Order: sequence, then C-alpha cells, then structure tokens
Amino acid sequence: MRGINPRVNMIHSSEQQTLIQRAKQITEELQQGVKKSYKEVISVCGDDTHSMGMKPLTFVRQVIATCIYPELLQDDTIATDARQRAERLLKECEGGSVGKYCSYSPIRGIHHSVCEFISKRDGGVPCSVENIYICCGCQDALLFVLNLLVHGEGLDQTGVLTPIPSYNAFVMGLESLGAVMVPYYLCEEEGWELRVEDLRKALYTSRSHCSPRILYVINPGIPTGHVQSRKSMEEVIRFAAEEKLFLFADEVHQDTVYGEDSQFVSYKKVLFEMGPQYSDSMELASFHSVSKGFIGECGLRCGYVELVNIDPSVKPFVKAFFNIQRSPPITGQIAMHIMVDPPKPGDPSYSTFSQEVKFKKDTLVYNVQQVQGIVDTLPGMSFQAGCGGIYAYLRLYLPPKALQQAKDEGTKPDRLYCMRLLEEEGVCLGVGTEFGQKEGTYHIRMCILTPTPKVKEVLSRLKSFHLRFLQEFA
Amino acid sequence: MRGINPRVNMIHSSEQQTLIQRAKQITEELQQGVKKSYKEVISVCGDDTHSMGMKPLTFVRQVIATCIYPELLQDDTIATDARQRAERLLKECEGGSVGKYCSYSPIRGIHHSVCEFISKRDGGVPCSVENIYICCGCQDALLFVLNLLVHGEGLDQTGVLTPIPSYNAFVMGLESLGAVMVPYYLCEEEGWELRVEDLRKALYTSRSHCSPRILYVINPGIPTGHVQSRKSMEEVIRFAAEEKLFLFADEVHQDTVYGEDSQFVSYKKVLFEMGPQYSDSMELASFHSVSKGFIGECGLRCGYVELVNIDPSVKPFVKAFFNIQRSPPITGQIAMHIMVDPPKPGDPSYSTFSQEVKFKKDTLVYNVQQVQGIVDTLPGMSFQAGCGGIYAYLRLYLPPKALQQAKDEGTKPDRLYCMRLLEEEGVCLGVGTEFGQKEGTYHIRMCILTPTPKVKEVLSRLKSFHLRFLQEFA
Ligand SMILES: Cc1ncc(COP(=O)(O)O)c(C=O)c1O
Ligand SMILES: Cc1ncc(COP(=O)(O)O)c(C=O)c1O
Repeated sequence: MRGINPRVNMIHSSEQQTLIQRAKQITEELQQGVKKSYKEVISVCGDDTHSMGMKPLTFVRQVIATCIYPELLQDDTIATDARQRAERLLKECEGGSVGKYCSYSPIRGIHHSVCEFISKRDGGVPCSVENIYICCGCQDALLFVLNLLVHGEGLDQTGVLTPIPSYNAFVMGLESLGAVMVPYYLCEEEGWELRVEDLRKALYTSRSHCSPRILYVINPGIPTGHVQSRKSMEEVIRFAAEEKLFLFADEVHQDTVYGEDSQFVSYKKVLFEMGPQYSDSMELASFHSVSKGFIGECGLRCGYVELVNIDPSVKPFVKAFFNIQRSPPITGQIAMHIMVDPPKPGDPSYSTFSQEVKFKKDTLVYNVQQVQGIVDTLPGMSFQAGCGGIYAYLRLYLPPKALQQAKDEGTKPDRLYCMRLLEEEGVCLGVGTEFGQKEGTYHIRMCILTPTPKVKEVLSRLKSFHLRFLQEFA
Repeated sequence: MRGINPRVNMIHSSEQQTLIQRAKQITEELQQGVKKSYKEVISVCGDDTHSMGMKPLTFVRQVIATCIYPELLQDDTIATDARQRAERLLKECEGGSVGKYCSYSPIRGIHHSVCEFISKRDGGVPCSVENIYICCGCQDALLFVLNLLVHGEGLDQTGVLTPIPSYNAFVMGLESLGAVMVPYYLCEEEGWELRVEDLRKALYTSRSHCSPRILYVINPGIPTGHVQSRKSMEEVIRFAAEEKLFLFADEVHQDTVYGEDSQFVSYKKVLFEMGPQYSDSMELASFHSVSKGFIGECGLRCGYVELVNIDPSVKPFVKAFFNIQRSPPITGQIAMHIMVDPPKPGDPSYSTFSQEVKFKKDTLVYNVQQVQGIVDTLPGMSFQAGCGGIYAYLRLYLPPKALQQAKDEGTKPDRLYCMRLLEEEGVCLGVGTEFGQKEGTYHIRMCILTPTPKVKEVLSRLKSFHLRFLQEFA
C-alpha cells in the first residue's frame, strides 16, 4: 500500500484475538462432530454481558422498539410508561423519526437528562449541557478527547499516564494516535490500590522522553474491580493539579459497585468538594457508557464525556471538532436516557425494572463468592476480590517448568495457560498480558456478570485443568 | 486549555451553523407569539430526509423493532417476513441480543449480505467480506480510511484532491487530520462534469506544497446531483493509476439516480471492466451509507467501505486499526442489511416496500420539475438539474449592489442572501460557501427528497423573496 500512515504499521493486534479465533474453530469442530471431553466452548473472556447470556432490561427495549416503530404506541402489551417515554422522545425528533442526525442538534430531552443525572449523582454539583458530548460509545468519547489533546513529536510528544493493568483498547488508541503510553503500576498486594508515589515515579521518569499531559484513571478499575477511596482520589487530584495534568476519569463501571462498604464517588464530585483551588481550574474529562453496568447495551453504542474546566476560548473549536466526527446513534442514546433516568417508584415498569437490576446485582455478588470459594482451595492461584466492575482478575503462580515451556514455545506463560485451558477444557478466559502486568506476574480474567450456572461450569473446568497443569509442570 | 492539539484550534466551524441557530431562534420567537409574515420556519438546508418529513420504510423499522424487543416475534401486526428476518439475525447474535459488540466479530449474515449486494450490483465482480469494513456511518468510514493514509509534514504532507463543490464534513475531516485539501473544480457549465484536465492541473499545482496521494470523488455528486458517465469514470481511473493516487469513491447517493438515461455504475465495476492492468493494482475505497437514498436512516448510523487492492501485508494492520476504533451500532447494521437485501417479489412485505420506495422516487422526480419550473421563470437564478442525489443546487447571479452590501457587512453574498431569506420568509437553505464554489459564483442548496407541499411552499416564498431582493439591489 502506497503511503500508509506509518503509525498504522506499528499497531499491535490484540493478544486475545488468536485465542478467540481458536475458540471459534473449536466450536465449529464440535459442531462437525469432533469428539472432545466437553460439549461446548464457554467464553467468559469478554465484557459483553448480553452475549454471555445476561438478558437486556425490558423497559430499555420496550422504549427503543416503540421509538423505532411508533405503531407500537398503540400496543397494550408494551408498558404504558415505556410508550409514554417513547412518545416524548419522538416529539423531540424533527419529523417524528429516530432516523434524524444528532450531531449539531442533540435530542434535548436526552442531553438534559444526562446533565440532571450527573448533578443528582454528585449531590448537586452543577452541570451544563454545554459540556456534555454524547458519542458513539465510550471508546469513541475517549478517542475524541485524545484527538483534541494529543500532539507533538520527540520530547514534546504527549505522554499519557496509564494504569497497568488497563483497558487495552485505550492503549491501542494511544498507539494509533502517536501518543506515548506512560505506564503506572497498580499495587496488587494492596488490592490494586493506586498509589500516588507510583504515579509520581512514572511521571518523572517519562519526562526524559515525552511531555506527560494526561492522566488516565479507571474507577472502578478494570480488570481489577478495585474501587478507589475518596482519600485516594483526593491525592490523585492534588497530584494532577500540581503537575498540570488533564485528568481522564473513566467511570464506565460506576453502576456495578457491590462491595459492602464501598460506594461509587465520581471524580467530579470529589474535585468540587475540594474547593475552588481545584474545582475552578483542574481540567477533567469524565466518561460513562451504556455498554457496561446492568444495562450492558454494548451493541447499541452510546457513551458520553463531560468536559470540566475547559478554557472558554477553546470551546467553539472543541464543538466544531466534535461535529466533524459523527452523530451518535439514536437507539444507543435512548438506552443512555433510560440508564440516567430509569423508571421511578410508582411507575408501571418500576417493579420489573428493579427486579431485573436486582437479579443482575445478586448474580454478580454470588459469582464473586463462587470464584473466591474455588480459588481459596487452589494452590498457585490468588484473587484480590474487588468491590466493583464485572470481572474476577486472578493471579497465577506458575511453576518454573511452565515458564520454561512458554519460553520454548515463544509465548507468554499466561497465554500458554489459557491456550491449554481452551484446548483441554473448552474455556476461553482473558489473558493477563492483554491488560499489562508487572514483569514476572501472570493473570487471567473472567467476566462474572454472567449467568451463575455458566460461572460454576467454568470454575469446575478451570479447577480440574489448573491442578493438572500444576502437576504436569511440577 | 493546556496542550491542545494545535490542529483543533484551526478548525473552521460550519458556515451553515449560524443560519441554523437563527432558524431555531425564529421558531422560538414564533412560538412566543412574535408576529412575522410566515407562521413557521421551513428548513430544507440539511440532508436528513426523515427530519424533513419523509417517512421511514416500514419493513426496516419492523425488523429492527423485533430485533430490539424479541417479544414482537409473536406479534401478528408485524409482517411475517419482517419477523423471520429478525429471527435469523437474532440467531446470529451470541446470547440472542443485539446488545453485543460487533467489532471483532461482525454479524455474519449482515457482513455477507453487503458482499453479495456489491457483487450483484457490479454484475458479478468478486467481493470478499475480508475487504468490507462496517462503520458507524459513512463519515466514520471516511475518517477511518483517511486515518490509515494521512501522514507527513511539509512537502511530504498527504494531499487530497477534493471536488468543489463538495461534502463539507469531509473537508473538515481533512483539516482535523492535518491533510492538505487540494481543490479541483467541477464544471458547472457542463452540468457539473468532472474534467480530467482540471484534476491534472490541480494535482500539478499541489506538488509544490504537498504530496497528493488521495483522489476523492463523489458520484452521484453532492450538492450538484451530477451522475458521472462511464467514459468520465474511465478517464478518472486512468488518471489515478498514472499518478498513483488512492481513489476514494463516495457513492452514498447511489440509490437516488432518477435521470431518464442515467444509471448508477460503481467505480469498482468500471475498474474491473477496464482489465487487469487497472483492476489488479489500483487502490480503491468505495463508500456507502444507510443515511441517504430512500432508506434515509441518518440517526441509526451505519456505513461501509470496501477496500480494493490493499497490499496483503498491510491488511492485518488495517484490521487491528479498525478494531481499535469501535463497533458499529447494531440497529444501523440491520438497516444496512435491509438496504442491501430488501424484500423480494413474492415476499409479504414486497408490495408495501416497493410502494414506499416508489413514492419517494416519484416525489424526487416531481420536485425537481417543480424547482426547474420556478427557476426558469426567475431572472438572476439558474439550475443545472442533475440526474441523481437529493438536492437542487441553484446558482445566483447577484446584482453588484448586493455584492457591495455583503462586503460592507463582512459576509459572503450568498450568506447575506440566505440570511435575508430566512428573516423575511422563514426559509432556511444551504449556503453555497459551505460547499465551496468558484470565486465570484454564488449558490444555494435545497434538499428535494422532501414532501412536495413543503417544496412548493419553499419555492413560493423563495420566488417572492428573490424578486424583492433583486429589486432592492437593482
Ligand atoms: C474501562 C472501559 N472504558 C471504556 C470502555 C468502552 O466502552 P464502550 O463500549 O462504550 O465503547 C470499556 C469497554 O470495555 C471499558 O471497560
Ligand atoms: C457525499 C456524502 N458522503 C458521506 C456522507 C456521510 O454519511 P453518513 O451519515 O453515513 O455518515 C454524506 C452525508 O451527508 C454525504 O452527503
């Protein structure tokens, strides 16, 4: 190809992909009658809860279906509040069709509901629609803001402080934009805590080869499940302010905080409670999405970013730049609208809605306990259970012979482990290398917002494989 | 804002926006009871046919609604073929939910249907799913391929040959990526024909300040409505091959070709019919979308690009790069699926579907005649009616005093014209400057895939305004 952007030629494809490809092949082999010790492949490597069998929320789907096909406004089998909601939304679409563009003129009711949600969530901290950009998923929102900021070459190249382990599509996004990924390591021993001294170390070291300008924080953390304490967040904010970093708060997992004493607090709220010294000047981008949490609508695509403390003189350019991009899909926006403004007590759909959410939450809590219960009985494996998110992230302590075997095969030890697990037991897990990890540590990831029978089956296969694996390489 | 990407600070916001903002204000004023000579603002400046009152296609909406809310599989008021289609699509979604991600694993049936459509449309020219990238709208697809290719600084900076008039969001996309827009002018006198000598001139001139690597062609053209002849396309292909340009064929308006003797032929088809000298090596990206044509689903967001003759060694990087971006929304993909594989004769929905499409086509043809009829009676205005697309693009011949007035007000003459038209008659049109035009020429654009009564009302208001305007500045 003549004249390709040289950056594209440097992009790593995802480590996980070969595993997923192989899982597909095995599924086909099974369908063709090849005999294995298992009847089907179970994949819990992703973060796509519908595809793993969690059901969509009825109210969300009823409202969207009615907006798409307004004849359903007359359909009594659809809850009245769903139809009313759809009717209100349709009234806001010129021409009464969700087939309209939204970039230049977002649907007011949706845009405003996001604002009200944020303000209410944050105990009244003001929020303006001006600062809310609704995107085609949070990944799109992340790339939008990165594109605004990333620039420069050599020593002036934008550096982005990025947690390890991390959300790998973000890291790939950095590569594709030519930003410098500056890793800071989370402390597994302390339940994956973010320690400011580690941030500082990473920042100072990076200054020899780039200009660190952005600090990316994921809270609740993925794949770790760690939920940051307010104290830790205050420290992070002070650090970012001192070092003049633009803070990216990726809060897409804010819904799924299930630890007994933990609670989600947004970076924006903490920032504003720290007083004007911080809240008047610190640049913050806070991200959310409909893909995660109990709504889990990955396929509809919608996320938002709120930009806080953006220089007013720059705002028109930000807006113009946003508009070049694209208009977010309306069905995703409707899901977002319901995520931020769900049925209330007294509404016809309230009881079904709450039961569906409660079921998912209970599933999550129960599944964590299942994982903990099994891991506790296993040698060579540990689990720092988090209080949030939708994954269990397990550490593997692999015997030296297994490490040697991986070396001989030219692969990573946890990849060897996962590939063997897939071949022998038909279970596809996430490989730690995909998310980044401290040199010499190995991990596996499992999505646990998954129906419990599936999780149990995975754990049982994992257990027998793991013991066999340890024995083989003892 | 500290450390913003300097390119963002150079983006022009759209000229049209001030007009659209003012149209909104006037609408609010009318609602508040302010008296004007008109009762409502009519906006035909956009390209969003649903918002202008064209109805969505029933079959499209029935299939999507059923996929979103599968309880409708049991609903007899939904056509059986719509339900069958939904059932097939749902079977292809793991977990049976359209809530799943699609970037790494597109929905097979949709991906393949696009391929079959292309191959059939092009008289059997082979097409492989490997080369089809389904995106969140065609704008996303354009930016995806631009991002793959645009690079370099100074003399090595990628230049993109771009028609004038053009699709302005593409031009803004070029700006945002730091590509050099190299304008080539379409020949209005010859019905907006693309003349290769003009291309060549633009190319040679541009070499003094950039490296032209991409040739962007829009066919059917917007806003011109010009449909290229096969001969013209062959010339363009020969030129691109000689000059080693990557050809971007933006064919989003392929559905709406209504001229008596004209027919849409794709660049890919012409390329393959020119024989292996061209078809084995010329790099081509061909774009399509669900936003335009008779389907007009701008709000659902889906488009695709087919990449032809991409170096096999680069493909894995292209794929990896694509996957970083994002997964296209499923509801948009379903619309795409139906666009490429509509109901067939004999299917229960066939007759409704064809009637709905025929109605839109008839509307388009009738509206063109209406516009022509009025323009023919008016001094100071001309119309090179095209054979495709969804716009009427009119030329204004403005009196010197009007040009002087614009100069005095520090605005463009056609913007002055449109602003006055809006204030005095409540009609919002597209301003020629937005699309680019030859120095000293002025234009206005009107979307004519719009209900006929609206078009008639627009024409009547335009006529009386225009005559008044000419008189005022005589
Ligand atoms: C931490 C984090 N941020 C962002 C995203 C992107 O979400 P979306 O599907 O809205 O693009 C994900 C999805 O996996 C995520 O885990
Ligand atoms: C010529 C042309 N290309 C591309 C697009 C983008 O279409 P989409 O809505 O699919 O992003 C448009 C939309 O106006 C267009 O007119």
